[in-house]
Amino acid sequence: MPTWISGRVRKAPENFVQGEGVRTVFAEARAGRRDFIRGAFATAASGMAAGVAVAQGVAGDGESAILNLPAHSTGLGQAVATDGYGKPSRYEANVQRRQSPGLTQTKQASVSFAPLQSLFGIVTPSGLHFERHHQGWWDIDPSQHRLMVNGMVKAAKVFTMDEIMRLPSVSRFHFIECGANTGMEWGNVAVPTVQYTHGMLSCSEFTGVPLITLLELAGADLKKGRFVLAEGADGSSMTRTIPMELIESGEVLVAYGQNGEMLRPEQGYPLRLVVPGVQGVSWVKYLRRIEVGDQPWAAKDEAVHYVDLMPDGLHRQYTSIQECKSVVTTPSGGQMLLDKGFYNITGLAWSGRGKVQRVDVSVDGGRNWRTARLESPVLSKCLTRFNIDWVWDGKPAIIQSRAMDETGYVQPNYQQLRAARGSRSIYHNNAIQSWAVQESGEVVNVQLS
Amino acid sequence: MPTWISGRVRKAPENFVQGEGVRTVFAEARAGRRDFIRGAFATAASGMAAGVAVAQGVAGDGESAILNLPAHSTGLGQAVATDGYGKPSRYEANVQRRQSPGLTQTKQASVSFAPLQSLFGIVTPSGLHFERHHQGWWDIDPSQHRLMVNGMVKAAKVFTMDEIMRLPSVSRFHFIECGANTGMEWGNVAVPTVQYTHGMLSCSEFTGVPLITLLELAGADLKKGRFVLAEGADGSSMTRTIPMELIESGEVLVAYGQNGEMLRPEQGYPLRLVVPGVQGVSWVKYLRRIEVGDQPWAAKDEAVHYVDLMPDGLHRQYTSIQECKSVVTTPSGGQMLLDKGFYNITGLAWSGRGKVQRVDVSVDGGRNWRTARLESPVLSKCLTRFNIDWVWDGKPAIIQSRAMDETGYVQPNYQQLRAARGSRSIYHNNAIQSWAVQESGEVVNVQLS
Repeated sequence: MPTWISGRVRKAPENFVQGEGVRTVFAEARAGRRDFIRGAFATAASGMAAGVAVAQGVAGDGESAILNLPAHSTGLGQAVATDGYGKPSRYEANVQRRQSPGLTQTKQASVSFAPLQSLFGIVTPSGLHFERHHQGWWDIDPSQHRLMVNGMVKAAKVFTMDEIMRLPSVSRFHFIECGANTGMEWGNVAVPTVQYTHGMLSCSEFTGVPLITLLELAGADLKKGRFVLAEGADGSSMTRTIPMELIESGEVLVAYGQNGEMLRPEQGYPLRLVVPGVQGVSWVKYLRRIEVGDQPWAAKDEAVHYVDLMPDGLHRQYTSIQECKSVVTTPSGGQMLLDKGFYNITGLAWSGRGKVQRVDVSVDGGRNWRTARLESPVLSKCLTRFNIDWVWDGKPAIIQSRAMDETGYVQPNYQQLRAARGSRSIYHNNAIQSWAVQESGEVVNVQLS
Repeated sequence: MPTWISGRVRKAPENFVQGEGVRTVFAEARAGRRDFIRGAFATAASGMAAGVAVAQGVAGDGESAILNLPAHSTGLGQAVATDGYGKPSRYEANVQRRQSPGLTQTKQASVSFAPLQSLFGIVTPSGLHFERHHQGWWDIDPSQHRLMVNGMVKAAKVFTMDEIMRLPSVSRFHFIECGANTGMEWGNVAVPTVQYTHGMLSCSEFTGVPLITLLELAGADLKKGRFVLAEGADGSSMTRTIPMELIESGEVLVAYGQNGEMLRPEQGYPLRLVVPGVQGVSWVKYLRRIEVGDQPWAAKDEAVHYVDLMPDGLHRQYTSIQECKSVVTTPSGGQMLLDKGFYNITGLAWSGRGKVQRVDVSVDGGRNWRTARLESPVLSKCLTRFNIDWVWDGKPAIIQSRAMDETGYVQPNYQQLRAARGSRSIYHNNAIQSWAVQESGEVVNVQLS
C-alpha cells in the first residue's frame, strides 16, 4: 500500500487512472477546461503521468500540474473566526427566502417563503425560516420585555426574561406551518416552485418553559379557565385563543430558544408561543401577555381571518390543527433533470396530530405507489424527511407523495379535498401535490382533477 | 370575560394590576425608568389607572401612557426578507465563537470555540459551530470539486457534486468533538469558561450519501480492503485512516448538507466525511479522495499527532472514538447567579459508542447525585440535553455532571482518568467537570483532586 513518508513523498496509487472514461480531477485541473467530461476522454492517456507527478509533489512534468492545482490545495486559507457569526458559502447566495411579488399590499404585512427545494433533513436554518408578519418585525430589547399572566388566576404575575430563563426548560423539535400555506393552489393557480406552494413551512428545535408551569405559578383556575388568550407586543395586536387541553399536555411552550440559539427577531425574539401541531398564527410572536378565561375570545384573527369557507357558504372557525400533509421537494417545480437515470426523490411529511406513519410516492400520477424510507428520528408534530430511489426513463412522469399519520388519517387528493371543503378556501389545503416531469427534463406544477 | 369589540375597545382585565409588588410592563414604560423593580413599587398605586387607559386605547389619563409605549407596540416594523439571509438579534452580538488568544501560532492553524454557555437544545447553529483548521478555510466552487474513489477497487471513480447529490441520501443528527477538546484541563489549567473548556464540540443534522454506497459503485474489495484513507483538498493535506467496519455499518457519510442547508465553508463545503462517534480530525473536510487499502496508513495526523501519551511513556495511536462525556453549561464558569432561589441546571452529554443512558448531577462536589431529565430525542452518537431543578441556598456549591452511555461506561472523575491515562496527554479528556458557585454568586472552574 502507498504510505506517506515524512508527509511529502508518496508512491502513486496503482488505480489512480484506469483508462478511458475515468474522469479525473487532476486531468481537469491541468487542462483548465470547463467541459470536463469531454476533456477527461481526451487526456486519459496523459492523465497517469500528471496524476503521479501531482501525487508526488515534485518538479518536472508535474510542475505545471502543480501550478494548475487550485489555490485551495496549495495556499494558506482564511483564519478561524475571532468574532462575528458565520454565513453560507458565496456559491449558495441564491438559496434565500423570497417574497411573492404582488401577494400582499405591503412588505410589513407579508410573507417570505422558505426555499424548500434547496433544504435537506428536517431542520430549517434560522436564516432561511419562513416569515409571516402582520405589521413587520422588531428587534425587542429583552431586558425591557415582560410577560404578564393574568385573567382567571390567583395572582397576576409579570415575568422578566431572566425569570423565565431560570425556570425548568424543555427542548423539542416541531414544525410550524402557516394556515395559508399552499393557499394559492385552491384556485388552481399552479405557482411555479415548491418554495411558493409549500414554503410557509419550517421546522426547528425550540427551547422554553411549558406554559402550564407559568399558569401554575400564577395559580390559574384550570377547572373554569379552559382557554387562554395569547397576546403579542408588536403593533399588530395579534391575539389568539388556545384551548387549555393543549396547554395541560405540557406541549405548549413559552419559547426563547430556536435551533440552539435565541429566537431570531423575525420569529418573535425574545419570546414566542409554540403551539405544536397548530397553525402558525397561534404561535404568537413577541409574546407579552397570557390571559386565562372560560371561553374563546373570538379575536379578530380567529373570528374574521383564518376561517375556512365551506361548500355550504358558512365559515368554519377555530380550525387550528394542521392535518397530515407531504410534498416532494426534489424533483420539484422549476428544477430540471439533466439526463435519464438514477435520482433520489426526497421530500417532507408532517402532521399536526402526531407522528408520520408512512409516506407513499407515485411517479405515474397516482396509479402506482411505493413506500418511501423515513429518516429518523420520526417525531411527533415535526417534519419527517422521506427518500426513495427512482430511475427516470426519460418519459413524462408525474411525481406525488401521500402521507399517513399515526391516527390513520391519509392525505387527500384534490378531488377528495374539494368534496369535503369546496374550492373557495384560503386556509388548510393539505392535498397531494403533483409535479410533472416533462421529456425535456423540466419539472412543472400541475394539478390533477 | 373581556372581549374584543371591533378589535379596538376592550374592558380592562380585572386582575390587571393587583397592588404591591406586581411588576407591570406598563408601569415601567410610563415611568421610563431602567431600575424597573424599584419603579414598580413606587408606581403601584397609579399603575391601575395607567393600565386601564392603555388597555382601552383611549385619550385622557391614558394618553401619555400610550405615547410612552414602546415603538414596537405602536409602529410599523421591518419588512419581510426579499433576499439575503437572516441573522441573530443585535442584543445577541456577544454570542460568538471565539479564538483562544495565544493557543496557536497562526490564525489559519487554530481553533475557534463554540459558545456552549449560550446555547440551548442539541442543535448548534451553523454560524456558531466550532472551527478547527490546519491551514485555514476555503470556499471551494462545488462545480469544480470532485471526489475520487480509488485503491483496492474494480474501477476507480470520480464523482461530481451533481452525481453525489443524485444518489440515495440519508439525514442524521450527530455530535462532532475535536479530540483535543478539554485538553488544557489535563495540566490543571482551569480555563475560565465552558466555551474554552468544552467548546470544540458541536452537533448538527448531516445529510449525505453513505460512504459504503460509493465504495460499492467503485467495486471496492471489502474482503481485503479493510481500511480507507480519506483525503482533503485543502493545503493541509489532511489524511486519516477509517476502519471498514465503521463504513460497513452505513454510519459513515459523505455529507454535503448540515442543519438543512449546504455545509458551511468552515466545515468543509462542499463535501465532508462524517464519522459518527469518532474525533473531529477524521471528519475530513473538502473531501477529495477515498482510497481503499488493507492496512492503516499511519498518516502524519494519526502517527505523530492525535496520539495519547500514556503513563508508561508510550504513545497510544488510533484512539479515535470519543468516550462518554458530559458538561453542565449553565451555571458554568464566568456566569453569575444574581440571587438565591430556583435555577434550571442544564448541560450536554454524549458518547461515541451509542446513546446516553443517564446523566447524574451533583451540587456538592460529587457526594450526592440526582438523575437529570433527558430531553428527547436521545439519539446515538449525538448530543443529549439534560435539565434538572436546583434551589440555591446562597452557600458555596460545586456543580458536576456524570454521564453513562448504553454500554454501561461511566464518565470518570479526574482521579480515575489520571489513574488510567496519566497527566501528560492532550487528547481525549472526558473527565467530570466541576464548577464552583461562590457565595457572591460567581461561578468558577475548579478541578477536584
